[in-house]
Amino acid sequence: VASRRPVRLALVGFGSVGRRFAAHLLGNYGRILRRLGTPTRVTAIATARHGAAADPRGLDLRRALLLASKGRSLESLDRGGPFTSAADFVKRAPADVLLELTPLDPQSGEPATTHVALGLRRGLHVITANKGPVAFALPRLRSLARRHGVRFLHEGAVMDGAPVFNLVARCLPGIRVLGFRGALNSTTTRILARMEQGLSAGAALREAQAAGVAEADPRNDLDGWDAAVKGCAIANAVMGARLVPSQVRRSGIAGITEKDVRLALAAGHRFRLVVRGKRSGRAVEVTVAAERLPAGDLLVTPGCDGVVVFETDLMGEIGIWEGVGGVDQTAYALLSDLIAILERPRPE
Amino acid sequence: VASRRPVRLALVGFGSVGRRFAAHLLGNYGRILRRLGTPTRVTAIATARHGAAADPRGLDLRRALLLASKGRSLESLDRGGPFTSAADFVKRAPADVLLELTPLDPQSGEPATTHVALGLRRGLHVITANKGPVAFALPRLRSLARRHGVRFLHEGAVMDGAPVFNLVARCLPGIRVLGFRGALNSTTTRILARMEQGLSAGAALREAQAAGVAEADPRNDLDGWDAAVKGCAIANAVMGARLVPSQVRRSGIAGITEKDVRLALAAGHRFRLVVRGKRSGRAVEVTVAAERLPAGDLLVTPGCDGVVVFETDLMGEIGIWEGVGGVDQTAYALLSDLIAILERPRPE
Repeated sequence: VASRRPVRLALVGFGSVGRRFAAHLLGNYGRILRRLGTPTRVTAIATARHGAAADPRGLDLRRALLLASKGRSLESLDRGGPFTSAADFVKRAPADVLLELTPLDPQSGEPATTHVALGLRRGLHVITANKGPVAFALPRLRSLARRHGVRFLHEGAVMDGAPVFNLVARCLPGIRVLGFRGALNSTTTRILARMEQGLSAGAALREAQAAGVAEADPRNDLDGWDAAVKGCAIANAVMGARLVPSQVRRSGIAGITEKDVRLALAAGHRFRLVVRGKRSGRAVEVTVAAERLPAGDLLVTPGCDGVVVFETDLMGEIGIWEGVGGVDQTAYALLSDLIAILERPRPE
Repeated sequence: VASRRPVRLALVGFGSVGRRFAAHLLGNYGRILRRLGTPTRVTAIATARHGAAADPRGLDLRRALLLASKGRSLESLDRGGPFTSAADFVKRAPADVLLELTPLDPQSGEPATTHVALGLRRGLHVITANKGPVAFALPRLRSLARRHGVRFLHEGAVMDGAPVFNLVARCLPGIRVLGFRGALNSTTTRILARMEQGLSAGAALREAQAAGVAEADPRNDLDGWDAAVKGCAIANAVMGARLVPSQVRRSGIAGITEKDVRLALAAGHRFRLVVRGKRSGRAVEVTVAAERLPAGDLLVTPGCDGVVVFETDLMGEIGIWEGVGGVDQTAYALLSDLIAILERPRPE
């Protein structure tokens, strides 16, 4: 087994998730993969602003991380390029598995969706931690993967590495998902939880921004767009929907005042931004809205960065709950998907 | 695919779970299995008090259910016996997959453990909804299954068909489970929840007995033994422990008075019978005790018949939550395990 040809990984996108994944490959993840008997090698990395590098025999990952941490170009490591663009990289970089980790434009799902499609067309397995491709183009990408005999996995698209998609696909066989509800946007969860503790909406937002939880431009979180994209991803993946985020009826938390939060709390209730999916005839409807929930509800348990409850035909309600989500948990989603591909490379 | 030889199922035990499974095979489950392209046929059934029947070409399941519902013997359907005992049935009945569904002696894990071992030795895949074999003999049964090239699955042993064992095995690859905590005994959960609403402990117990949730002899639930057996099953299956239930440090809910519950509730707390597992050096420790938890804790969410939170090295805490557990949910565990065997008959 030790002499098996290493599986070649190409990373398009080398920000916090890509770098964390690479760092763990040098430690924990590498040990786990070796124990499974499948050596892997990162053969190509494309960054947003520091060039790209490829080496069919494997890049020096430690050196790539060092260069990236210093803001220096990776091109000194290149033995396979140069590449004219990220798309060119995705089309030509030496690889068996493409990991799509670029910054996402949440309004369009790009460039991730294009990269995934290009990778699949080349016959690469593709893993992404981006919700865009799943929310905007899943049916097309699934059929591309089938046609090319490869797999497209995306566990990191929602709730980091907590099994949302895989829970249904691998642990609830034969079941029909009738609907779901979830608190999937950790920024609004944290802001509302801090408002319960007496902070103003503005102070809670600034705190979340300072902690790196909220973006500099927080509108995608606050107005429910991020949650809508995640809701679409779930509906498309586990309910067979063909939705895009613009079809989601959506409101955000902007209308929730400190007074609303205080009055709710006095009555034993808490606000959360809730994503719901349900079947409506042959279609699936997804909605996003701030809801006032009883304090005991699964969706408002403290110390939770993400939770989704599936309503099913044969099992009633099944919930999956994630304590803390962060870069390490998203990096784990990539490992989990990679192991699944190494163990079962045939499309399902 | 339609011409594939039907997979033969033998049911040892034909109580509420076995009958519900059989009834669903005539409906929903049958449709799901046909859609997967693998026809199945029940070729043998052994009951506790109404005899056994086998027919290599398949039993008339509708008729078997009718006879059982009338308390009449199944022997009029027999074309393969007679069998001298349940063990004789397990050794000789025509089958590819054995479903072990006998009433469990929770103190010994028998006769389920013996049945599972006999089935595996014959080269049958074995599915059980009994926690006994997992809590008392998992390492031995796993090695038997490997040696005979078959699978032993037991998702129904804890939290009905909610994925507990499969969640870790199939959705958290590479992860090390460091510990767990759970509310796994629905009888005590329901009794404590009713006490919170003002019922006395005795009245809450009698109500649970009338609803068929608590046994006539409720000691196994109230003194924590049932929870200890489930805790062992989880520790053995997902933490590689080699525990038996007598090694669990255990107390029950008998000491919890109405006044305790009332005082706790006034302070925003609720009691639950909590099972905990943790690593202690190279060993695993499991404990069962009534704990006072904050009302927002995941383990006390209302409308929940079972919940377990895994503490992991790479993902932090991951919880799995079941709304309502009952005979339908346990029957589903059998379907889930059966589909897994049909799709991947090789031992893992």
